[in-house]
Amino acid sequence: MVGRDRGTPCRMADDAAPGGFAGRLGARVQDTGDGVATLAFEVGDEHLNPAGTLHGGVVATLVDTVMGQAVRTTTGDGEVPATSQLTVTYLRPGKPGPLEVRGRVRTRGEHLTICEADVEQEGRGIAHAVATFAILDRR
Amino acid sequence: MVGRDRGTPCRMADDAAPGGFAGRLGARVQDTGDGVATLAFEVGDEHLNPAGTLHGGVVATLVDTVMGQAVRTTTGDGEVPATSQLTVTYLRPGKPGPLEVRGRVRTRGEHLTICEADVEQEGRGIAHAVATFAILDRR
Amino acid sequence: MVGRDRGTPCRMADDAAPGGFAGRLGARVQDTGDGVATLAFEVGDEHLNPAGTLHGGVVATLVDTVMGQAVRTTTGDGEVPATSQLTVTYLRPGKPGPLEVRGRVRTRGEHLTICEADVEQEGRGIAHAVATFAILDRR
Amino acid sequence: MVGRDRGTPCRMADDAAPGGFAGRLGARVQDTGDGVATLAFEVGDEHLNPAGTLHGGVVATLVDTVMGQAVRTTTGDGEVPATSQLTVTYLRPGKPGPLEVRGRVRTRGEHLTICEADVEQEGRGIAHAVATFAILDRR
Repeated sequence: MVGRDRGTPCRMADDAAPGGFAGRLGARVQDTGDGVATLAFEVGDEHLNPAGTLHGGVVATLVDTVMGQAVRTTTGDGEVPATSQLTVTYLRPGKPGPLEVRGRVRTRGEHLTICEADVEQEGRGIAHAVATFAILDRR
Repeated sequence: MVGRDRGTPCRMADDAAPGGFAGRLGARVQDTGDGVATLAFEVGDEHLNPAGTLHGGVVATLVDTVMGQAVRTTTGDGEVPATSQLTVTYLRPGKPGPLEVRGRVRTRGEHLTICEADVEQEGRGIAHAVATFAILDRR
Repeated sequence: MVGRDRGTPCRMADDAAPGGFAGRLGARVQDTGDGVATLAFEVGDEHLNPAGTLHGGVVATLVDTVMGQAVRTTTGDGEVPATSQLTVTYLRPGKPGPLEVRGRVRTRGEHLTICEADVEQEGRGIAHAVATFAILDRR
Repeated sequence: MVGRDRGTPCRMADDAAPGGFAGRLGARVQDTGDGVATLAFEVGDEHLNPAGTLHGGVVATLVDTVMGQAVRTTTGDGEVPATSQLTVTYLRPGKPGPLEVRGRVRTRGEHLTICEADVEQEGRGIAHAVATFAILDRR
């Protein structure tokens, strides 16, 4: 759900720009390809809940963002992916340190696209997500 | 998933403290009761995605937080709710302005609690969520 | 997702016909209205898992069916609702005896409709569901 | 969620017995291993909705069953897996003919286990599922 500055030619650098909420949070696009995207994120103390583990909402933000990026590698210029349903399954607690977030399109229909994402820390899965995106025309 | 400063006697004021990620984001507890909780949130420009609508990750953070609060009205001092699965259904785009977020426990078993949340803006639902929480012992 | 025999004028009786899988399972439409539908179902021994409780797949069938019915009260003749994502939360075990299953449309967009369903037995909730439906043109 | 006849020594043959709802529907266990399980299923006309495609409830039954099988390869004799939340994402319509259904445990905690399942037909994914299981003591 991270968008583009229309004046910049490079999608990757563009998507990595700190324009939206996910960029401000610290998510950085590492790579995008045909239906896939990868984000890097450094979990800091400001991303924890008071119990001292990574807040579930940060994880949700990252997977929503990486899947939106993955979808956008498959959409045209006039199209905007909008998340319609997002399910995050929390596998184990996250902690301060680097995270790797990978998203990929599972299937793209005419109006609906289904994606999947994995979040790993130190080589172990900490969350899995699936989401349905509607492809809207840019108004 | 917002915790408590153990030195403060009042759960509500306590939960509203800007300690964790959700507090820092700007979520404020309005009310908690027996298995229910309400948050107030003011959507600002910093919470938008570049398309100009409320980022899905902010919504996920708010519903995860309000449901965690609702669960915590039903747990003992040594117990911490941890989200195991969260499904957010996005009903319509959110925009700058006040949001109301309500969570409630649907059922609480011995080890597992199921909650529901609604997010409204200007009297219309913008998101719905269900989540399963595991109740962990505080280490 | 239960369809219609095009020759019958009454949608309710029509939808209740034992044509599809859900009808054959024993689901019966009790009522449909503007964006809502109700099914009655009698849990028999054949619907149990070997642990002696109602199989989660029967519950999923019922909620998918009732939400499809609810959607169809809002669609035109050439449109067919297709479930894109379904989340069922199991609140407590079901057992032999009557069930009441209610579905309702939460919001209907141009291409996407979001529904909710509740399953009750003896006045207590045994499951809750949310689903996203795509509205397809009948080929 | 398919159980065992306690008198039979072989888990696989046992799980394949037509005792519960999934067995009666026609699901057959092909293989189980350490945290994984595979079902074979033949879609017949009786499993379709009136639109002529595989009913979403049949898919939900199969994924719930295969994930329950996968969990049971990791549980003790006195433990019963109970689905707490199930999300099925429908990728494309199923039709009459053979299906392959694979489930695997993603992580197993003390009280909670998270699984994933894929449903394929003719080598293409038709559904994906994630579920959270609580592990209950057999009464």
